[in-house]
Amino acid sequence: MAKNLEVTVLLDFYGDMLTEKQRSFIDLYYNEDLSLAEIAENEGITRQGVRDAIKRAEAQLFNMESKLGLVERFADTKRSLEEIVKCADEIFESNMRTLLSREINENSARIKAIALSLLDNN
Amino acid sequence: MAKNLEVTVLLDFYGDMLTEKQRSFIDLYYNEDLSLAEIAENEGITRQGVRDAIKRAEAQLFNMESKLGLVERFADTKRSLEEIVKCADEIFESNMRTLLSREINENSARIKAIALSLLDNN
Repeated sequence: MAKNLEVTVLLDFYGDMLTEKQRSFIDLYYNEDLSLAEIAENEGITRQGVRDAIKRAEAQLFNMESKLGLVERFADTKRSLEEIVKCADEIFESNMRTLLSREINENSARIKAIALSLLDNN
Repeated sequence: MAKNLEVTVLLDFYGDMLTEKQRSFIDLYYNEDLSLAEIAENEGITRQGVRDAIKRAEAQLFNMESKLGLVERFADTKRSLEEIVKCADEIFESNMRTLLSREINENSARIKAIALSLLDNN
């Protein structure tokens, strides 16, 4: 079973929509790098049972992304926010070199802080 | 059955996760303001059948919001982006009154355009 690295990203966005067991299997397999056999032994079920559960959970994650597109939308939002940070930096530096306006200084710092906080929370 | 106006907002965010029939019932009932009896007659099913389908769809919508919180997260993001727009306006105006820096002018306009576009698309 090939590991699809995108699964861990999808788990970050949609993990709460899975059952606790599904989340745990995906986490052990992808993030903790346990083998199917190791997870099966810990859980007291068959290797095939673990494999099926992970395959079903993966299908749900990909289905949610195809319907809601949160991962793709966040990638777009991230690029936009990074550009806002860059523009705010340029305003800040330009102001420091020339006008030294306190109002422009404070507003550019505020824009940068808000954009960075959105990048953290989204 | 009391109409919960939040349902139409949830439908905007999570409608793609419902079946076409569920989406259609919710839309007819909430957005088109048809009665349960009218929807039932159009669909050739019982009024109770329509009611149950809408109740189930509503429960799914509220469940998804409790798990993913997109509506609440977007409300937060919206406030932040509106503040970015306000700060960019202040920089623009302050610059127009004083320094007339082309660099600051362009960067503040760019920040405002990006923030408005994020407000539109999210």
